[in-house]
Amino acid sequence: MIIIGVDPGLNNTGYGVLNSVGHEAKVVEAGVIKTRESDNFEARINEIYTEFGKIIDQFRPEYIAVEELYSHYAHPRTAIIMGHARAMIFLQAAQRRIPIVSYAATRIKNSLTGNGRASKLQVMRMVQSILKLNETPTQSDTADALAVGLCHHNALLGK
Amino acid sequence: MIIIGVDPGLNNTGYGVLNSVGHEAKVVEAGVIKTRESDNFEARINEIYTEFGKIIDQFRPEYIAVEELYSHYAHPRTAIIMGHARAMIFLQAAQRRIPIVSYAATRIKNSLTGNGRASKLQVMRMVQSILKLNETPTQSDTADALAVGLCHHNALLGK
Repeated sequence: MIIIGVDPGLNNTGYGVLNSVGHEAKVVEAGVIKTRESDNFEARINEIYTEFGKIIDQFRPEYIAVEELYSHYAHPRTAIIMGHARAMIFLQAAQRRIPIVSYAATRIKNSLTGNGRASKLQVMRMVQSILKLNETPTQSDTADALAVGLCHHNALLGK
Repeated sequence: MIIIGVDPGLNNTGYGVLNSVGHEAKVVEAGVIKTRESDNFEARINEIYTEFGKIIDQFRPEYIAVEELYSHYAHPRTAIIMGHARAMIFLQAAQRRIPIVSYAATRIKNSLTGNGRASKLQVMRMVQSILKLNETPTQSDTADALAVGLCHHNALLGK
């Protein structure tokens, strides 16, 4: 079963494609959809929409997993712009009838490390360890995408 | 020349179709795209995307006008959800290569009333007066959509 975890953003939308087989999850692919700052806003969100559509077509996931919205954001305007990018993921999910699931940040951290208040580095290291990666994912967007995908893999196992 | 002003929101996306002929702007149509709270989030944003696409197809605007994002929001989470709806307007504009323009709230108020800090009611009354409507638009989403459309009409006239 394929799960794609996504960490959306206007500049960088991280994604991690996981193959969930029984209790194990393996990385099929992970990467980042980047948009150019020199392009206008609408072209950039269109690019996220288009590129994410290609990833879905290639990997045909059973689930797409994203982080839930918080109640509070330090930078609301940045968060609203992230919301535009996040909407592209939801729109693709709706149009292709792929279930989209969301998890609170604390749930993701707890699922991976046993601690809902784990640091970003602790989460990244657990992503590396669980997925048997040679290196800690250097791109934090990719690590966050893999983390939410793993959280859904765990949730399906009742963990 | 057709200008569509839009006031996006998850529940209600107001739109106002204006025909801008020389110094005058007339309402061609105004309304609200409503989504059902009982539908899931991704279905609702997909509906905004689809319905707004139909409006564009019907009226073939030269411009789409929306309000700019603020720096501060009283309810960031609500604003981020609005951002998802707003993204549907930008995506449609990008896909159909229609220029999308945005104006700060103060600019819109100033353009219509001469006062950047005008009240919502003052703006609504000016929308009614300028567009020679029989009644003040009762739906505030529609009034806001007409207001940003009128602001762009004025901007094109150098006002």
